Amino acid sequence: MKTDTICAISTPAGTGAISVIRISGEEAISIADNIFRSAKSGKNLASSKSHRAHFGYIVNKSEEVIDEVLVTVFVNPYSFTGEDSVEISCHGSQYIQQQILQLLLENGCRLGLPGEFTQRAFLNGKLDLSQAEAVADLIAANSAASHRMALNQMKGSFSNELMKLREKLLKFVSLVELELDFNEEDVEFVSRAELKELAQNIEETIAQLSNSFRLGNVLKNGIPVALVGETNVGKSTLLNVLLNEDRAIVSDIHGTTRDVIEDMVNIDGITFRFIDTAGIRDTKDKIEKLGIERTFQKIEQASIVLWLIDCTQFSERIEWLTEAIMKRAKGKKIILVFNKIDKIAEEECEVLNELFECFEGERIHISAKKKINTRKLQNALIKAAQIPELQTGDVVVSNIRHYEALQKALDAVRRVITGLDAEISNDFVSQDIRECMHYLGEITGEISTDEVLGSIFRNFCIGK
Amino acid sequence: MKTDTICAISTPAGTGAISVIRISGEEAISIADNIFRSAKSGKNLASSKSHRAHFGYIVNKSEEVIDEVLVTVFVNPYSFTGEDSVEISCHGSQYIQQQILQLLLENGCRLGLPGEFTQRAFLNGKLDLSQAEAVADLIAANSAASHRMALNQMKGSFSNELMKLREKLLKFVSLVELELDFNEEDVEFVSRAELKELAQNIEETIAQLSNSFRLGNVLKNGIPVALVGETNVGKSTLLNVLLNEDRAIVSDIHGTTRDVIEDMVNIDGITFRFIDTAGIRDTKDKIEKLGIERTFQKIEQASIVLWLIDCTQFSERIEWLTEAIMKRAKGKKIILVFNKIDKIAEEECEVLNELFECFEGERIHISAKKKINTRKLQNALIKAAQIPELQTGDVVVSNIRHYEALQKALDAVRRVITGLDAEISNDFVSQDIRECMHYLGEITGEISTDEVLGSIFRNFCIGK
Repeated sequence: MKTDTICAISTPAGTGAISVIRISGEEAISIADNIFRSAKSGKNLASSKSHRAHFGYIVNKSEEVIDEVLVTVFVNPYSFTGEDSVEISCHGSQYIQQQILQLLLENGCRLGLPGEFTQRAFLNGKLDLSQAEAVADLIAANSAASHRMALNQMKGSFSNELMKLREKLLKFVSLVELELDFNEEDVEFVSRAELKELAQNIEETIAQLSNSFRLGNVLKNGIPVALVGETNVGKSTLLNVLLNEDRAIVSDIHGTTRDVIEDMVNIDGITFRFIDTAGIRDTKDKIEKLGIERTFQKIEQASIVLWLIDCTQFSERIEWLTEAIMKRAKGKKIILVFNKIDKIAEEECEVLNELFECFEGERIHISAKKKINTRKLQNALIKAAQIPELQTGDVVVSNIRHYEALQKALDAVRRVITGLDAEISNDFVSQDIRECMHYLGEITGEISTDEVLGSIFRNFCIGK
Repeated sequence: MKTDTICAISTPAGTGAISVIRISGEEAISIADNIFRSAKSGKNLASSKSHRAHFGYIVNKSEEVIDEVLVTVFVNPYSFTGEDSVEISCHGSQYIQQQILQLLLENGCRLGLPGEFTQRAFLNGKLDLSQAEAVADLIAANSAASHRMALNQMKGSFSNELMKLREKLLKFVSLVELELDFNEEDVEFVSRAELKELAQNIEETIAQLSNSFRLGNVLKNGIPVALVGETNVGKSTLLNVLLNEDRAIVSDIHGTTRDVIEDMVNIDGITFRFIDTAGIRDTKDKIEKLGIERTFQKIEQASIVLWLIDCTQFSERIEWLTEAIMKRAKGKKIILVFNKIDKIAEEECEVLNELFECFEGERIHISAKKKINTRKLQNALIKAAQIPELQTGDVVVSNIRHYEALQKALDAVRRVITGLDAEISNDFVSQDIRECMHYLGEITGEISTDEVLGSIFRNFCIGK
């Protein structure tokens, strides 16, 4: 298939020491040669071997020098896209970046769409679709866990699992369809029990992958934490302390709205997403009761509930509230946090503990203001998050598109199992198993439509 | 001299498709080898030739993969810095950038200071100081003219001029000092007239370079334009129109304050800097007279004055004001702009022209709102700017440090000329000529102190 040649600035927007402009397509090298003059006279890029960097100049039509650059040539198929590619490393001035891009367009390049380089890598078989999607996840990853997950996926651990599944499904389908061919002769090549065992094995693997989405999703989007407490117990002070101790990259991310940043706290490589809950006020008021109800609803979105109590003063209803929260947060981890611990004596502290005797979860005494025991609280959060440490090669599904496809594949394979139990005809079993393969094929992109590809790559950045 | 190994992110800050991390110094390649695993097993960077790109993985201490990368090796002296250098092209995730930087620091790199790569290039004789300074100018350049100027300087056109000057000065000094050696014998190796001719030739060249600073400065910082007019004549509409038609890069620059952007307009590659002047109101008021005075003072900072008149209504004092402006703006280009021309009939227009018969400068009839003749106005601005088109190789001084050194060199060479006229002893002549050489040497960095270097490179970006 003949493709046009695309170009784009691949480094982050703005001014810096250097910027990289990428070109890919059949004419990538010849177009680059049009505007590049090697510092070694007589040398051109067309004669360059792959993976060679050349020092020289970008010139315009009038042979005026636009910049001193380093140009690296990648000869197909030994490039990211699988096509002939060229990377121009120029000075990071916006003026120069624009000028070079302009020259490339004048010489027959087209501006690359978001993700078009990766899309070409996919179309040329350098990556499957789930790996291509992982490239975008990798760039967006802002914690150790989400980074590890995306990297594993990009390196093909998920794809390998799917490939193994596909082989099993193919074996299954061939067995079933072979019987179909000899249908009239009533031959049984394989026992139904064996087929069922194979189907159950497949079902188990798909279910495992599908179940990993819960973990994948929290790793990617952060573990939802509800910080609940009466007004003035120090919720925002605590949040600020956690944010300030967040030495990770989250707070540095450009282009993320400030709101989002404020709610994301990275502790030891795990991202926690704090759900905003209003402070609980006096409940005599009917309207305020609605407020409590809303807080309770927010609790439902959380995996972890931080129940913050000001130990210097708390209303009589604190016990009732604690009980209510425990009831509403069933199945979630609750951490009881006594704040302003620096302001009370040790004996008072003991009274406090007795008061909450009925509370079974973790309890921590802190002073957010004085930063007493805040590290302890962080450790408790990490423990409550129950995030298994990911190893290289671990397969965790984090993409909702994959999750949905897995769910559909799971439905199909379960129909196969019930079909086998009900002794339905092989035609139907075969159909279900092919449907299962179809959905798994959607993940890797063996089966894909322009529409699906469009919606996937639209969310990439330009130049990737 | 043994140098430590530095590293820095060289691409603009933020998230993008790819980012480049630069390493330079004696251990650049071995440190990179510590954290790089080539995709071709058994290959390491130490055995790589210069200018080769290698695909592989960055790994941490536990051999866990941090990213898939492309690593390019530059073996000294064939690198920008002149030292062994490595460029890691990684995915443009901030998390990955930070992780790789962290790994490099753990393996013995030090974080590069702003401009430290360029400083090393200077210290290793790859660039002289004026060329190194041009690198920062090149990155900051946001118009065709300032870009051309910086590029010429980086490519050494200014350095060549200085080198030629230095040769002449050396010739001069050797002639004078040779005589000095034979002083007692009263030999004259060269006539005073010849010496004077040589000195005058040197003086002329230095004066020419020094004079180019006026042009260099406006090209770099924009041509100052005062937009003067009564209130409600359409000053801000006009400024917006000029800004919106500014298809150049200026408005896209990140990190520049919005205020500055609003006042900078790029027309056909030349930057105009609009000086904010208050609208002139009724002058019966004493305070308002002060306002006019302030506007007049602003005019003095400008090279071009745009005198904007609402031709549908103007006060009786308009003639008086025009006259006053013409008087105050002596030596500057004044462009008389009649705005809202779409709202009056052709006859009225003629009356208008007659009214301003005494005005000798350019006059243009526009409608800022309807964008009538705004291109004509842009052309008039360019004409008024009188910017000669810079050619590759043109020498224009744009750096105040260079200008000041040239001024001092000029003083010294002029003392030589007066000295020769006054027939002072060769000792003194020789001293002055050596002083002249000293100042020129400051520009190229032959003579430099850590302090000077520090103040120059401090203003660079990190990673350059």
